[in-house]
Amino acid sequence: MSSLKPVLVVAGIGAGGGTGGATARAFAKLGYSIALIARGTDSLKSLENELQNSGAEATSFPIPSYEHSSIKSAFESVRARYTSTEYSIRAALYNAGHGVWKPFLDITPEDVKIITETNIEGSFAFAHEVLSDFKQNEIDTTNGKRGILIFTGATASIRGNTTTSAFAAGKFALRALSQSLAKEFGKQNIHVAHAIVDGGISTPLSRSRRNDSEWDQNEDIRLSPEAIAASYVYLASQERSAWTWELDLRPAHEKW
Amino acid sequence: MSSLKPVLVVAGIGAGGGTGGATARAFAKLGYSIALIARGTDSLKSLENELQNSGAEATSFPIPSYEHSSIKSAFESVRARYTSTEYSIRAALYNAGHGVWKPFLDITPEDVKIITETNIEGSFAFAHEVLSDFKQNEIDTTNGKRGILIFTGATASIRGNTTTSAFAAGKFALRALSQSLAKEFGKQNIHVAHAIVDGGISTPLSRSRRNDSEWDQNEDIRLSPEAIAASYVYLASQERSAWTWELDLRPAHEKW
Amino acid sequence: MSSLKPVLVVAGIGAGGGTGGATARAFAKLGYSIALIARGTDSLKSLENELQNSGAEATSFPIPSYEHSSIKSAFESVRARYTSTEYSIRAALYNAGHGVWKPFLDITPEDVKIITETNIEGSFAFAHEVLSDFKQNEIDTTNGKRGILIFTGATASIRGNTTTSAFAAGKFALRALSQSLAKEFGKQNIHVAHAIVDGGISTPLSRSRRNDSEWDQNEDIRLSPEAIAASYVYLASQERSAWTWELDLRPAHEKW
Amino acid sequence: MSSLKPVLVVAGIGAGGGTGGATARAFAKLGYSIALIARGTDSLKSLENELQNSGAEATSFPIPSYEHSSIKSAFESVRARYTSTEYSIRAALYNAGHGVWKPFLDITPEDVKIITETNIEGSFAFAHEVLSDFKQNEIDTTNGKRGILIFTGATASIRGNTTTSAFAAGKFALRALSQSLAKEFGKQNIHVAHAIVDGGISTPLSRSRRNDSEWDQNEDIRLSPEAIAASYVYLASQERSAWTWELDLRPAHEKW
Repeated sequence: MSSLKPVLVVAGIGAGGGTGGATARAFAKLGYSIALIARGTDSLKSLENELQNSGAEATSFPIPSYEHSSIKSAFESVRARYTSTEYSIRAALYNAGHGVWKPFLDITPEDVKIITETNIEGSFAFAHEVLSDFKQNEIDTTNGKRGILIFTGATASIRGNTTTSAFAAGKFALRALSQSLAKEFGKQNIHVAHAIVDGGISTPLSRSRRNDSEWDQNEDIRLSPEAIAASYVYLASQERSAWTWELDLRPAHEKW
Repeated sequence: MSSLKPVLVVAGIGAGGGTGGATARAFAKLGYSIALIARGTDSLKSLENELQNSGAEATSFPIPSYEHSSIKSAFESVRARYTSTEYSIRAALYNAGHGVWKPFLDITPEDVKIITETNIEGSFAFAHEVLSDFKQNEIDTTNGKRGILIFTGATASIRGNTTTSAFAAGKFALRALSQSLAKEFGKQNIHVAHAIVDGGISTPLSRSRRNDSEWDQNEDIRLSPEAIAASYVYLASQERSAWTWELDLRPAHEKW
Repeated sequence: MSSLKPVLVVAGIGAGGGTGGATARAFAKLGYSIALIARGTDSLKSLENELQNSGAEATSFPIPSYEHSSIKSAFESVRARYTSTEYSIRAALYNAGHGVWKPFLDITPEDVKIITETNIEGSFAFAHEVLSDFKQNEIDTTNGKRGILIFTGATASIRGNTTTSAFAAGKFALRALSQSLAKEFGKQNIHVAHAIVDGGISTPLSRSRRNDSEWDQNEDIRLSPEAIAASYVYLASQERSAWTWELDLRPAHEKW
Repeated sequence: MSSLKPVLVVAGIGAGGGTGGATARAFAKLGYSIALIARGTDSLKSLENELQNSGAEATSFPIPSYEHSSIKSAFESVRARYTSTEYSIRAALYNAGHGVWKPFLDITPEDVKIITETNIEGSFAFAHEVLSDFKQNEIDTTNGKRGILIFTGATASIRGNTTTSAFAAGKFALRALSQSLAKEFGKQNIHVAHAIVDGGISTPLSRSRRNDSEWDQNEDIRLSPEAIAASYVYLASQERSAWTWELDLRPAHEKW
């Protein structure tokens, strides 16, 4: 790789204890500088501090929403912080999500708007910024990549269900985007991947919701954010002759 | 069926010579009254007149966009015109679409907005109105349906490709919605279906674009709107023990 | 269509009260002569008699198994009975199946053999004979077809599950065959289709197994063979500009 | 892991320069003893020697065909060589394949037989032996596995095409088996995975066929067996909270 320091940009970290945070930690350990884009200033700051305390370079870029203009503006700040003379954005994760599980007739226009903004408007804006930067990168000779862009999907990425009309619409759309981009940008040595997370993830939030220590302690029945992050690290390492667009991830005992 | 006159509501008729128009004509021949919701006042009026001249009851409801409020307002007009004491909305087609075929980095925020509005905001609003009405209907004893809601999909509903990131995102989302609704509302004897139109459709617009009379005259290589409409009529007739959620439609000689 | 009498060939009729039998009856009503190929001489003879009593031309061709040589030999008999100077094979249904639902380690080599024979050896042999004949037919100008070949699939055609390793392997293979053939022979105006039957079918056999008259009488929760057959008749009628390769069929209330 | 030496069993090594061989080498480097099951005594012996010369424990078990009895008998030899007091079969790769690319009507009953034998009879027998052994293993505490069974798939695993009716039938069936087993045996902490190899693999055989050194030297346009093997090593390492059933693999520049 070039002498520029590699940067990972993550969009979407929830409360910081999930997939986005774990991915930031995992890439930080590999020497990446981290840019965190998300709503929720407190969680962002807290994760930023944690990463910095672990010795990593990390900066958070709070956004009010996943609107196009917010994402674009956040990227300008990312580029100002991680200047192209010293840094090179090499990896990006679009992990933003918004869960709506409701009977269809209870779904409000606001639900539809937030699902759309999170899964389409935001992802298109994020991908636009990331890919524009990747195109300027030299190819990393170890894996043939100018950069890797990963999207976090879910069961609802491939299957609509009774209470998931809005959630699945968003996740299907995100998957379509990732497949289209994988086909278009693979030719330019940019790797685009999509992970179908098929099961419950153990996060501080899900643990407090469930309040079921057995569930949390049994790794056979729920995903850990670290294990998901490990798969993203693996995808980033895949060499150019065998890239994966899509893989599924689920706990050993999951019924599916 | 009850003594109420059945109504078909179509959203999206393009220039009137495509799938939406052909479906209106086909259902009109079966005795349905027609409600046409679309942008493009001229095309709407022209199709309305044509249907009326053929002896059908048809009314057009122009909308400025597929925004939630436009759809909701159009439905209020539909209900005022086709009152529930005399009519019963029994079939609905969401045929609105918007084509964006561009390299990803050329896609504008406006492209994303219109794709989103057409495929998600509009379809959710349309389905909300239609299903709310269907739930009030009695079950048609001939086929077990309170109503049928059909969505027009495309190749891009199941496959993203190099220039279809926006188009496929919209069409994937629409497919997710249709599958979720089929699962949720089947139990209430409401039939939801999705057609994957996999090939070029011969419409006045596509004919003038191609300017290739051979293409138009060779029914083995392009779809006719009438044939698509025939499949929608078939879906509406399927009896309750064997409903189809999804079928694909393509010309005999199509390479796929 | 030409002046030759159209013939439907059905492979697989079970006990006669299921999809194969209903399809034979439905096409007979449309004026097709019927050729029945199946194991189980009694069921065959009984269905043959029933069809003849209803005024149809029907002949049964018992086979000992779905081995290649049995199918080939049965077709020679079909051709001797329905000579090409007077008849034209225009439709064919491969409806043979064999259910194996077992934990994987309980599956025997014999189970694998019968699954393979029914779903691959037999279907390849059947399709070979049918398509060789279809290629000689003139194109039916009403629908653009030299002939239609339909395969009966199941939920297990698209999803493997805990007790369906053998059954799904067979059904996936059959689906692959149908898709390959649809692509190869569409160009020759031969229509190949595949139906995913996603639910329990009410047949004399399933009724006696379940012994649950409520299930049988509730058309919202189980498929009727006649409804499946109606979809096959529809597929046969599709005109050349919009052919369906695959559709799913399930009862209105099915959970899926 | 226990103190028993881990064994990898590979079925199908072609001429030794492809995926099977590369996987054997990769696992040997990780300390696995290797059991090679394949047709083609010379290739087997040659790979066995190569592995032994590199310091690995490797034994070849030639089989005349992928018939059930051959596979069963080979496993008895494997177990006699790698006794359960000293060894533990922990990983298995079903990599056997047979390519048939022909217009459908040119496919012979022999083609169908060999496709069936390689993809169904052999894979069911192989999985039966492997899973019976895995069930006796203790769970490896580092990744939650009693063992991992991987199947090599292809583009034709998910898409039938004009000349792939037989090949796709086999590969679809193999995929169905892998999915069914993943669902059934995940609950028993046995990991079953399926890789969709979507592109040409650079092997001595494919290189001599193409005779195109540019193709071979351009890692952006063809897969290397080593890269595929690296993905299998990764799958074997996945910890229990996030297992992958299926991933696709293709060169960066592949058109798909």
